[in-house]
Amino acid sequence: MSASLSSIDTPALLLEPGRMDANIARMRTHLAALGVQMRPHVKTSKSIDATRRLFDNGTGSITVSTLREARYFFEHGLTDILYGVAIAPNRFAQAAELIRAGARLKLVLDSAETAALLADYARTHAQSFDVLLEIDCDGHRSGLPPTSPLIVEIARTLRAGGIDVQGVMTHAGNSYDSRSTDDILRYARQERDAVVVAAQGLRDAGFAAPIVSVGSTPTALFADDLTGVTEVRAGVFVFFDLVMAGLGVCRQTDIAVSVLTSVIGHQPEKGWTIVDAGWMALSRDRGTAAQAVDQGYGVVCDVDGKPLDDLIVIGANQEHGIVARRDHATQHAHGPHLPVGTPLRILPNHACATSAQHAGYHVLDGQRVTDYWPRISGW
Amino acid sequence: MSASLSSIDTPALLLEPGRMDANIARMRTHLAALGVQMRPHVKTSKSIDATRRLFDNGTGSITVSTLREARYFFEHGLTDILYGVAIAPNRFAQAAELIRAGARLKLVLDSAETAALLADYARTHAQSFDVLLEIDCDGHRSGLPPTSPLIVEIARTLRAGGIDVQGVMTHAGNSYDSRSTDDILRYARQERDAVVVAAQGLRDAGFAAPIVSVGSTPTALFADDLTGVTEVRAGVFVFFDLVMAGLGVCRQTDIAVSVLTSVIGHQPEKGWTIVDAGWMALSRDRGTAAQAVDQGYGVVCDVDGKPLDDLIVIGANQEHGIVARRDHATQHAHGPHLPVGTPLRILPNHACATSAQHAGYHVLDGQRVTDYWPRISGW
Repeated sequence: MSASLSSIDTPALLLEPGRMDANIARMRTHLAALGVQMRPHVKTSKSIDATRRLFDNGTGSITVSTLREARYFFEHGLTDILYGVAIAPNRFAQAAELIRAGARLKLVLDSAETAALLADYARTHAQSFDVLLEIDCDGHRSGLPPTSPLIVEIARTLRAGGIDVQGVMTHAGNSYDSRSTDDILRYARQERDAVVVAAQGLRDAGFAAPIVSVGSTPTALFADDLTGVTEVRAGVFVFFDLVMAGLGVCRQTDIAVSVLTSVIGHQPEKGWTIVDAGWMALSRDRGTAAQAVDQGYGVVCDVDGKPLDDLIVIGANQEHGIVARRDHATQHAHGPHLPVGTPLRILPNHACATSAQHAGYHVLDGQRVTDYWPRISGW
Repeated sequence: MSASLSSIDTPALLLEPGRMDANIARMRTHLAALGVQMRPHVKTSKSIDATRRLFDNGTGSITVSTLREARYFFEHGLTDILYGVAIAPNRFAQAAELIRAGARLKLVLDSAETAALLADYARTHAQSFDVLLEIDCDGHRSGLPPTSPLIVEIARTLRAGGIDVQGVMTHAGNSYDSRSTDDILRYARQERDAVVVAAQGLRDAGFAAPIVSVGSTPTALFADDLTGVTEVRAGVFVFFDLVMAGLGVCRQTDIAVSVLTSVIGHQPEKGWTIVDAGWMALSRDRGTAAQAVDQGYGVVCDVDGKPLDDLIVIGANQEHGIVARRDHATQHAHGPHLPVGTPLRILPNHACATSAQHAGYHVLDGQRVTDYWPRISGW
């Protein structure tokens, strides 16, 4: 297929594969220099086409956020899959089914309750599982403290069910709130130290723990030493977004996804341009709100992707976006007149959230749409 | 079909049809007493099954937020459709196609530029359109000021293209920010006055303007006099949500949709329960953040729908929700221990946004799921 951008109904999600490939190359080069494997998180793209571009031969180890993703990527030939969310007891049977079908599925848990239930399930169903224990490196969400005695206790509970713990994993979620690249480096070291200490605790107690897994895009790109870590699970680097640009992790010109929109009206007295991308197309994510530069619901670019005169989306209803100058609140500053029908592109705050509002990617080659890559959704 | 709630994979969107029917009956009774027609906005449910329940005989006049919705509902037999977002020039051909297929489609615009382009299109293609002019009643988004000379000027531009303006419409979006039901009543009067004045201006200039359309759930339910108004386009009342409950427009027990989730872990020192409903299942909507009671990402209920001990979702990542007591910030207040696997239900801040994260509704009869109603999505 090849179609002009003007023939695409708006709003629509656009993807620039050249930018994506450069982002992937940057991460691969950096991690190769640190001597660790990449296990990218495919929850950002949820696309088999984008995921194949992560690997030399189109396949490799991945991380997923749902068992729906696990099934989908397994059906497309990717077998080494880490399901990165603590397994719920009501999903044991689904996980077992994937493993019996041939997936090298790795489950995560951080709960003695879950471990006991999984060990029971494994015994009852004569079904083994590969399990990583989730470690908390920064207090942002889930995981066991790195030196918690529960780590070895849970590993023993699992072993009693015939499950040998494969290692530990953590996610430095707080790195998204960094104020400087020095902050990010500190989070990267903290993330590494947490899993290395936890893995050592397991080994001291007689568990091999071959996998030591970390992962967030900021820490992956700013880590200077990952000794003791075996793999990195970053995800959003594939596309990047305004939150990452605000952290200094990428430039706005690295952002590979944008939302194509059309001008549908104006409020001239206010300097507002109304577009047909509201929160349904952009998502409600306001990840830049707490950063030094608040980008509203996204940075407004011309149809070639060039940022326009300090314009951002200052407000969003379901199918309406309000475009205005970033300084709208403090002065009566009008932007350029953009006639109705003008196509614009919006850079997203959060690539995972914005992409999730769309069924797929219109893949660009310059101003031509040359492919469509579907996304999966749901659970 | 009939399945127990425990057999549904989580997270999942649940719908209580009894509550929905009561919400619909309340709106119908109120509007009937005021002597106006209902043209419900189906962007909330995006479901033909839910939409049929709005009408005695399963069909009636509707409002949509995308032409995708217009096509879908037209294919299901609903022909009188108001497309409530200003028409973009790149969508004229799609609109014309629907009209030629038999839809009584009504378009909206507020721009002299769009009017000139539509008049040109109508002449060139010998295709008439039904058009309403959008009026701005509160400065929140789009629309012309009610006494703007542009209203008549645009009507004349359209007439020159063979298009007779059918009337005016407005949406009191600011009513969502009301602080009291007195505020809502004031917004309702302001909304009515804006369109009645604008319609009179058109009639004085020789345009019949038979349609005078208002619509927001708060103003629709608190309006005490809609003299001069012919129809009301409310939408979210079908399901209601925490934003509406916070405004005093409904009770929490009227909310007809919720997200079923499972407990997947704990951070006992913090009093946190981790669930498998993150922003992917709940949306990033934080509509209650500016209300008197901030409900986080939603109110946590037991599996029967009864709110639990002041628990809310205080944080959300893509597939993780963090459940804690509402007062977590100010005291070390632990909630009940909810074992892993416990099913919970989350009431949404914003029914339109949360429902949009799901492919359909699991329809409840008590604790049994007796039906599945698909949603449409995209553009």
